[in-house]
Parts: sequence; C-alpha cells; structure tokens
Amino acid sequence: MQRLLSGSARLLPLGLRCEQAVSSGIVKAPSNFTTRGYAAVATDSSDRQHGWQLGAAAAVALATAGLGSWLLLDPQTSHCEEVQLASAGQTKKRKAPLPEIHAEDVAAHNNKERGVWVTYKDGVYDVTDFLEMHPGGASRLMLAAGGAIDPFWAMYQQHNQEEIKSLLEGYRIGSLVGGQDMSQQVADPYSNEPKRHPALVVRSQKPFNAETPAELLTGKLYTPNDLFYVRNHLPVPAVDPAAYTLRVEGEGLRTIELSLKDLRTKFKRHTISATLQCAGNRRTEMSSLKDIKGTVWAAGAIGNAEWSGVNLKDVLEYAGLDERSEAEAEHVQFEGLDSDMEGVCYGASIPIEEAVYKGADVLLAYEMNGRPLSKDHGFPVRVIAPGIVGARNVKWLSRIITSKEESQSHWQQHDYKSFSPNTDYDNVDWESAPAIQEPNVTSAICEPENNTAVSTSEGTIPVKGFAYSGGGHSVIRVDVSADHGKTWTVAELSSVPAKRSRAWSWTLWQAEVPMPKEHTGSIELICKATDNAYNTQPDSVAGVWNLRGVLNNAWHRVKLQVQEE
Amino acid sequence: MQRLLSGSARLLPLGLRCEQAVSSGIVKAPSNFTTRGYAAVATDSSDRQHGWQLGAAAAVALATAGLGSWLLLDPQTSHCEEVQLASAGQTKKRKAPLPEIHAEDVAAHNNKERGVWVTYKDGVYDVTDFLEMHPGGASRLMLAAGGAIDPFWAMYQQHNQEEIKSLLEGYRIGSLVGGQDMSQQVADPYSNEPKRHPALVVRSQKPFNAETPAELLTGKLYTPNDLFYVRNHLPVPAVDPAAYTLRVEGEGLRTIELSLKDLRTKFKRHTISATLQCAGNRRTEMSSLKDIKGTVWAAGAIGNAEWSGVNLKDVLEYAGLDERSEAEAEHVQFEGLDSDMEGVCYGASIPIEEAVYKGADVLLAYEMNGRPLSKDHGFPVRVIAPGIVGARNVKWLSRIITSKEESQSHWQQHDYKSFSPNTDYDNVDWESAPAIQEPNVTSAICEPENNTAVSTSEGTIPVKGFAYSGGGHSVIRVDVSADHGKTWTVAELSSVPAKRSRAWSWTLWQAEVPMPKEHTGSIELICKATDNAYNTQPDSVAGVWNLRGVLNNAWHRVKLQVQEE
Repeated sequence: MQRLLSGSARLLPLGLRCEQAVSSGIVKAPSNFTTRGYAAVATDSSDRQHGWQLGAAAAVALATAGLGSWLLLDPQTSHCEEVQLASAGQTKKRKAPLPEIHAEDVAAHNNKERGVWVTYKDGVYDVTDFLEMHPGGASRLMLAAGGAIDPFWAMYQQHNQEEIKSLLEGYRIGSLVGGQDMSQQVADPYSNEPKRHPALVVRSQKPFNAETPAELLTGKLYTPNDLFYVRNHLPVPAVDPAAYTLRVEGEGLRTIELSLKDLRTKFKRHTISATLQCAGNRRTEMSSLKDIKGTVWAAGAIGNAEWSGVNLKDVLEYAGLDERSEAEAEHVQFEGLDSDMEGVCYGASIPIEEAVYKGADVLLAYEMNGRPLSKDHGFPVRVIAPGIVGARNVKWLSRIITSKEESQSHWQQHDYKSFSPNTDYDNVDWESAPAIQEPNVTSAICEPENNTAVSTSEGTIPVKGFAYSGGGHSVIRVDVSADHGKTWTVAELSSVPAKRSRAWSWTLWQAEVPMPKEHTGSIELICKATDNAYNTQPDSVAGVWNLRGVLNNAWHRVKLQVQEE
Repeated sequence: MQRLLSGSARLLPLGLRCEQAVSSGIVKAPSNFTTRGYAAVATDSSDRQHGWQLGAAAAVALATAGLGSWLLLDPQTSHCEEVQLASAGQTKKRKAPLPEIHAEDVAAHNNKERGVWVTYKDGVYDVTDFLEMHPGGASRLMLAAGGAIDPFWAMYQQHNQEEIKSLLEGYRIGSLVGGQDMSQQVADPYSNEPKRHPALVVRSQKPFNAETPAELLTGKLYTPNDLFYVRNHLPVPAVDPAAYTLRVEGEGLRTIELSLKDLRTKFKRHTISATLQCAGNRRTEMSSLKDIKGTVWAAGAIGNAEWSGVNLKDVLEYAGLDERSEAEAEHVQFEGLDSDMEGVCYGASIPIEEAVYKGADVLLAYEMNGRPLSKDHGFPVRVIAPGIVGARNVKWLSRIITSKEESQSHWQQHDYKSFSPNTDYDNVDWESAPAIQEPNVTSAICEPENNTAVSTSEGTIPVKGFAYSGGGHSVIRVDVSADHGKTWTVAELSSVPAKRSRAWSWTLWQAEVPMPKEHTGSIELICKATDNAYNTQPDSVAGVWNLRGVLNNAWHRVKLQVQEE
C-alpha cells in the first residue's frame, strides 16, 4: 500500500522537529539521511494518501499516526528511501482492540511521571511523548492533561484539520467507558463576534482574519472602517465602556487607572493618519514557493485610516514619566482584553523611544476615521503605533507597562520574526532575530487584477496600487515595468510626502505603462517602491522567504492575459 | 569613413541633454527618433573611432567636435540611422585656416550678447552655444568667459579626458596671436595636499579620492586612519588651528564664533563609533552594466572609526536653540573651508531632527580613533552625522546654519540623489528626489577576492565581509550563498547590535560556506544583509541602477575559479 506522493507535498502543520525525531530514536534514519529536502508519504487503511515535507518530521508523524509502512521521497532526485522505525509499538497496539478507560483514570494521568493523557470526543490519548513536540509548547498542552482537549481546539481552531486529527489518532490508547465525553459544555469563546461586511475576504473565521479586496484599497487615501482588514488572534472580547479602565504602571511610573472619561477629558485629543499592515501581508506569494504555516494573505492585509485619541507620551508623563524614568525603561508593553482559555491575554511591546521621539505620535486611539472604534478594531481603545507593524498596535487595550524588557508574550517572542530562507522549524532559534517593529518598504499592484485580459490595441496599461514603508519613512518613488524590468515607468504618487521622519501613511499611486511589443501570450506587471532611505524591494521572493512567511516585500507581480487585436 | 562602433558604446562624459540638442535644432533627428537606446559612432580624421550612448547627445558631441559624418546605432536592433546636421557650419569652418585672435578680442567676448569666448592653451573657442549644455551649469562656465579655462580645469580635473578635449575642439574659432596663453600663473590649488598611505587605491588624484583595499576592511572593527577611504570634492584647505573659528548662526540662534579652544573647553567631550560610507560605494558594479559619470569605486569607500568631539546639540543650545527655535528650523547646514575658484565652499545639510533626536549623537569631531583629525579627514573639525551618508559629514567645518531650507549647494541639490533606472541626464528632474541622508542596507564580500582560486577538496569556503545600514539601523543577519541563492549560510556577526535606533557602526561578519557540488568551473559567492527594519538588499543591480551610480546595494557577488582536485 506504499505510494509516492503525487503533486506537491504538504507541510506538516504542527512543524515537528526533525532532528529531535531522529535523535530521540523514534525514527532510525538511513546513514546518509539529512533533515532537509525530503517528502514523506504513506497510505492509510482507508487508502487515503498522506504526505508531508520536512524530513524526519514526516516520519514521526506517520509513525505516530500508526499509518504503517511509509517512504521518504527526495523531491530533488525522486530517489525513494525506506526508513525503519525503531519502535513500531503503537502500530502493533492498533491490532488489538482498544480498551475502555474510565474518566477517573484519565484524570489521574495529568503529569509526566504517570503519563499525560487527554481525551477528544470519546477517544483517550497518551500524549506524553508528544509534549515536547507540541508547536505551541509543552506547557500549553499540559493545561489539558487529564482532561478534554475539545475546548482548547474550539479556541485554537487551527487544530481542526485532518492531519492533526490523524496525528492524534496515533496516540490513541482507548475509548472512554460507554462512549462518554469529558468535555464540559463551555461557553463559546466566539459568542461576542460582530457582524462583518460581506465584501471582506475571510481567511479564518475563528479567530477572525479577513482582508480588503485589492481593488477596494486604492479608491481613497483612507480605507473605510467596514472594509479595513481584520487580524484577530483570539475571540473579540465583550467590553462594557462604563466599566472600562486602563491600567498604567511600570519602571519609573506610579500606577494609575484611567476610565474612558479620563482619557477623553484629562488629555489633549490628537489625530494622525497612519497605515496598519499585518506582518503576514503578501504571505501567499511565499507559500506558493514553499508551504508556510500561517494565515494565507494576499496583498489586502493593509489599510490606512485617520486615528484620534490621546498621546501615549502624555499618558506616560501623567503617570510620572520623566527623563530619569525614560532612561530606566526601554520598552512599553501593551496588553489587550482578548485572552485565551488560560486567561493569557494578547500582548506586545514597542521600544520606548517610539513613544517619546519622532514627534511622539503613538496614540491610544478611540476613534477611526471619525467614528468610535468598532468591535473588530479594538473598541473602546487601541494602540496606534504609527510606522510599526500591525501586531504591536494592541486592540482592546487594558494595560500599559513600562519595562526594561520587551513583552514576553508568544507573539513578541515566538512569532512575528523573520529568518534566513534556510531556517526552518527544525533549526530556528527564536532569540536570534528581533521582534518585528518597523516593517520594510513594500508596494503592490491592486489594479489590474491577476489574469485580467488586455488588448494589444491599447497603447498603455493603467496600473494602480499602494506603497508603504515603516518607521516614518516616506515612499519617494514607485517604478512599474511590463517587460521584466528592462524598462520602468515612474508612477504618479497620490500624496506629498509627510515630514521626513513622520510619514506614517501609505502612498497610493498610478501609472500608464507602455504595452510591451514582445510578449508570449501573457504580460507580467512588476512594481517596486523606494523609500527616503533609498531602501527598495528585493527582486524575488526566494531571497526573503522565511518560515513564518512575514514581511514579504519582493517585487509585486501580476500576470495579464494578452488578447491580440 | 563611417564605421559602426565595435564593442560597447561609451557614455558621453559631459552628459549632454539629448532632447535639448534635438529641440534646439543642432541635430535634426529622423521622425521616429527617440532619445533612448541609441549609440553613436564616428571616425575622426586620424581614423580613431568615437562612440557614445545617450541618443542625440552623441550627435551633438560628434557634430560639435567637428568629426564630420556620423551614424546613430540602435544597440537593441543593430539598426543604423543616418542623422542630418541642421548646421554643419563649424565643420566647414575647419576647412579654412583658423584665424589668429588677440587676447583683447577674447576678453571682450564675455557675455551672451557678443558671444562667450574662452581660451585653452593657445586655442580660442566660442562656447556660446554650449553654455546651456554645460553639465556644471552655464553660470560656472560663464566664470571663464573672456578668459582662460586652464585654471578651472586644473581645479576640476574631470575635464582632463580626451572626449572633453575633443568636444572643446569642435568650438574652436582660432588661435591666440603668436601662440600666447591667457592663463595667468595661478597658485596650484592642490599645493596643500598631504602625503597619503601607498596602500590606498587611488581613484582620482585631484581632487583626491581613494578607497581602502577590500581585504584591509575586515581586519578590525575600526579602520586605521591612514587606510580610511578619502572622498574630497575640492583641494584640501590649509588651516591654521590657532586662527580657526567656527561660526554658528541661523533660525532661532544668536550668531556666535567658537575657537578650537572654545570647542574643547566649553563643551563636554563625547565619543561615538560610527561608519562613514560614500554614496558612490560599489558604483563600479553599476558602471559595468551601463556607463556612469562618477568616481569608480569598488566596495572600499567605507570605513568605521571612533570619533571624539562635541555634541552638535550642545553647541546649538549654547547658541540659543530651544524648543521654539527647533520648531522654526528644519535643517542644519554645514559649510567647509574647502572651496572652488569662485570661493564657493563645499556644503551640505541634515534634517534638524537628526541633531536633536535619536540620542542627539551628531558630533563636531576633532579626533578620529584617538588622534587629531588628519588633513584628509577634515582637520581641525568635521561633522560626524552617524547613520547619514558620507557627503553630509562636512570636513574642515567653518560654519553651521540652522534654517528652514536645506543646503542649496550643488552637492545637496544636484548630486547625491538617486532616480529610477530609466531616468537619465536627458530627463532627470533633480527636484523630484530627496537628497540622500540615511543610506540603505548594504553588505559586501571582502575575502576572498574576485577570481581567487578554490579547490574542490575544500569542504567549505571561508568568507568575510562587512554589512551596514543607515539611520541607526542595526544589521541583524547576513546570508551567504555559493549556489546562486538556492541555499544560504547565516554568517557570524562580529558585534552585538547597539541600542535599537542608534546602531551607527557597521558589522563585520564571517561564514564557512559549503562548497557547492555543482559548478561550471567557477563559483559565484553572494552576500546580502538584513537590518532591524527587515529591509534587505535587492537581488540585482539593474533594478537600482541610477544615473549617478549611488547607493548600489544589490546582492554583492564575487566570482571564484574552481580547481578540481
């Protein structure tokens, strides 16, 4: 029943660590085995094919999933290796009927010494050996030890994939007595989600992630609130504005609590224009090169708005920030009211100089384009750290902490970082890269869309798009080419650049690009932007590919179909 | 005698404006003539071939040089066009013996109404029609009107090329009576030049421009003073330290004058490490793609030093800078003691926020690596604006001016800017691009050198280089590839990144890159750096090529020769 994988191999969603799998002896690799460049494939008892890339990780997945015999395929050479399992115990176990297990027995297996058991629906699973391979960390999985994982999977819906369920089945040791279910009826964490505009392109429902259709981006400088991309990491929290308080504390500050009324009356109101962009915007171009774990964004996870609120610096000074405390604190941490099942809230931080230098434009915003923040955009108060990547613009803000260290949250420490194209989950050192703050210079073609038909009778092709650079850098030029970069047309920019180091808003642009004389039935449009530090976009995605698929700022390309006339 | 140019066409050194040439009627172009993509060629009376790119500019050059018949060659299609001269008067004139002219007659032709004549050695030239085509501007050429251009050419030695002399000959109307020479014996403006270290790679003697050999760059974090690259725009001025005064004035300031002793005693001494890089560093890679006017730099127009002096902010505050005047002034201008024949000094400016934000690290430096500044590096005082391109770090500092406008100097307004690859001297709008301030992220391989032999018996290739990014951005990663970017090795960085927004020094790096299994007799090493804004270098030079050849930060490539063993 062994078959080679047809088509492209799929990435193992949980990103198991290959070297660990080999060194732990779960997999005994051939002597010339490396952890790179392999795809694995097997066929399960229902004759369904399963395939993964990532070398030995695939072996682990297939072995632990009890899928029986399997192969490793080197996609470069098409050479096929049979790899021996050091222990095929679990596979053998499957042959005997699985026992029924009492819920009390499961509950007693809640530690590493006795073993860590969990249930999913009526299945019982011994995940002791999987703990250290859990991509979310052993400690998070331990929260379910001795109980049901169902509510956790309701929260983290990325588990709801066939591959994950299949992986779990490999750890099955029995069924609950009488087919019972240990999962208590927990309130749906997603009960507070608002209605969304149907034009948004939904990339994930829970948590809600959706982008603006490209052709709606370039209509006006300010993206309408209802069409602005949404990137939630957790369920939208229910907030009672009357009871809302913002706690401010930390290095060099006295601890204070501010109500919404305090924020509106004790501090001067400021308004700035600023672009927000998800670090994963344009990830899909990276995924098409090599699979990536993460929300599949096209180019619409970006938007620009006019934000009103109070100045973070004013609030920090109200709480006692002065030159001495500025020197003590190096970061400003933010916590949101959105939290997971363990009560761990979303968190991020920015360097304190962003709050106190460069015009000190970081806002605690309560309005977006002249209207109160909507639920999806952080009602009642969110951070707007202009020039900084979206992930640090914490929504539903509950707490501000000045500190010597940056936020220790998962999203600051183990996500939203980029690495070399050769770094993957089996060799990544998260501490080796800084948390993304100001994003790199980027641009994208919004019109025409991919695969639009153009006629050779047209002398020029009208092209529209956006361009943006982080850190207050203004975009000074956008070049567009229809002949693979042989010639470039300089686009007309929509806006006069803002003050040199405080260009927080994107630039919309348009160009009339000469129809190339030579083509092969299709034309590729390319755009690239240059900012006022004369940084520009790299030519190809391959050089900036990274395991998280973040900050893809390669030249943006759109293919058009040519109709001869 | 018409011949097509063999080999690559050469750029017209003076960058004449094609459209102007066509529109002024000097050249009558074919109806389908465009000012792009043409090369021109002609053969002179000595049977030497002359060729230029740049469309009609070439026509002008050849016509005015009196070279007789000529052709335009489209290098794309190899199609050849014969272009008619609207006026071939000068060519005809050559046939009659040229008259002898009195110096008094030359002196009387010093305005556009009567005509603008100049002399060079014993030749007399009517340059009236050339005035508007002079790349340095008509006004600069007018300074020589009615007199000798010899001393100007002694100052601006870029004129001393065969093409320029040939161009001038086309304007010849006679010879001075008795072969006399109008050029007065002027003092050699380059009489104060210091001795230089013989290891420097000299790119121009007058003004002196020289770079550090690549293999000497990566030896230590601080480049030795004597080996530090030198980029002079004008002769080195003679400065008497006892008589030296620095004038400080402008928006919101009282005018003050400070002696060297004042600087050393009235202000606190500060020391910073900072990298300086010429905007033209790595120009040679751009020139090899398409000719460029400018000093031919390899990758050694960069260096790093420890600079000591006083804080610019302290001096500005001493002269009365406060929050109100900060708001009024937007730029800080600097003037050097180096000046041209008209007394116009070198000048540049930086945005005032560079002087007052980001730790306010801009120095008026009097020491370099613990020793007084040398003559070549700005004795007695120079600006060190860390994170800012070399050209704004004015040497031999004489004057500081706070102002609403940036410096109006040639080097701020009409040089040290970059444009789209399709922008050339015939369509450039200098105002459309900002003056370079913080340079983009870059890196280069210093060892091994180009064409080094490597043996296949080696498992890895040791590679060393530098990486740097402007604006206080730290380099967070350098990737090196020996297989055209299929795989990358992450280099080891020499230094821990400095405080987030104040990384003023370069990073040295080294990597052991696996010897690729496949090669074609040679291997291309590639490096690329990424900074903490996750900006990275573009893949190819073509996309960043610009008419001034500045800020080339494409992936750096070094070719190695493989010896099979």
